[in-house]
Amino acid sequence: MRMSELSSTSGIAIATIKYYLREGLLPVGESTGVNQASYSHDHVRRLRLIRVLIDVGGISVVSARTVLDAVDDPEMSLSHVFGKAQHTVSQSDLYVRPPSESARRRVDALIARTGWRVTPENPGRIAAANVIDAFAAIGHPELSDLVEDYATAAELVARADLESVGKQPDVAAMAEVVVAGTVLGDAFFAALRRIAQEHVTAEKYVVYGPVSDAVDPRRSAARPLQE
Amino acid sequence: MRMSELSSTSGIAIATIKYYLREGLLPVGESTGVNQASYSHDHVRRLRLIRVLIDVGGISVVSARTVLDAVDDPEMSLSHVFGKAQHTVSQSDLYVRPPSESARRRVDALIARTGWRVTPENPGRIAAANVIDAFAAIGHPELSDLVEDYATAAELVARADLESVGKQPDVAAMAEVVVAGTVLGDAFFAALRRIAQEHVTAEKYVVYGPVSDAVDPRRSAARPLQE
Repeated sequence: MRMSELSSTSGIAIATIKYYLREGLLPVGESTGVNQASYSHDHVRRLRLIRVLIDVGGISVVSARTVLDAVDDPEMSLSHVFGKAQHTVSQSDLYVRPPSESARRRVDALIARTGWRVTPENPGRIAAANVIDAFAAIGHPELSDLVEDYATAAELVARADLESVGKQPDVAAMAEVVVAGTVLGDAFFAALRRIAQEHVTAEKYVVYGPVSDAVDPRRSAARPLQE
Repeated sequence: MRMSELSSTSGIAIATIKYYLREGLLPVGESTGVNQASYSHDHVRRLRLIRVLIDVGGISVVSARTVLDAVDDPEMSLSHVFGKAQHTVSQSDLYVRPPSESARRRVDALIARTGWRVTPENPGRIAAANVIDAFAAIGHPELSDLVEDYATAAELVARADLESVGKQPDVAAMAEVVVAGTVLGDAFFAALRRIAQEHVTAEKYVVYGPVSDAVDPRRSAARPLQE
């Protein structure tokens, strides 16, 4: 297809597509003449992956290129694509700020207990420790105990993630799924957590009927503690 | 404590604290004279909660005020604090953009199957449906099947979340934990998912020794499919 069709199919403006081509995020099309190139459905998919990385993952164009270079490099091991995706997508302050020694040790202890084999460079270590510090800072250090159930859930999700990677037909598709899954998986889980939280809140605190203004769940929320 | 000590204890600049006071995010201190007020440790904790909402949750000062007003309103039901926290923190495009009908139905079907009781307004419904659309857009509709294991994990996490809420000594602390947990819980899970992913990748694709450059996990990744 021509550039104009690539734009209408993907829903991305021609100027933006040209920018991605210049920055090397999108492979050039097959040349069909002077200043003319033909694009395939692979270009449409790649454009959408770029938008996911930038819009959902919130990463920069430069970072998106780093990740996509890793996807496209057949010599890059799958673990490295994972590492690259994790490091690039995880750019919030939580992944950078040095956590306290005690929070670090808490994460180390969790890893030892679960038997997980993880390198010291894994970006999740620092972020998890920073969250533990944040719980303490807001006066709720007891929330760190959530780490146990969260870790169980995280391993369940990671196994599902890796299973979906393993089902891909080739290594290029695997690498693509690793990158997309890192970004979209976080968002997917956060969405489902919000749905499940509403259900569990209703189940736990509102004994009659659905959640409504008619009852005062905050008062009934206090009930289990008072009775 | 005086304003200067509140600043040094919390690590937040005096100008910023004054801004939060003006905007109503932070309750005023106890007046101790003309232009003098005394602040307590509750102010330190509240300041840190504000920073968590803004820095980790990425929400605006105005949105932070909406959430904190809900926390401080004793008439506000716990379900409503949850709803307010979820809606305010979930401001990415995924929570706004209208998803496809088929993706919506997929989420509805999940909710019916799990037996979750959820209102149509839950923000997670739209976000989950948008992620399903994004999987299809990048050419990987099969990733939507992740929803099953993700939902199981999400319910496990939601139960842990609500248990931590239930353990709070009073309704004010409950509301605070709901808000902090919404923001920090997302970050905590994402961090632990990254750690678990590295472990599962190593377990699944690298049969001998730790992940290293010496082996080519991408090639060994392809092996299970070829053998």
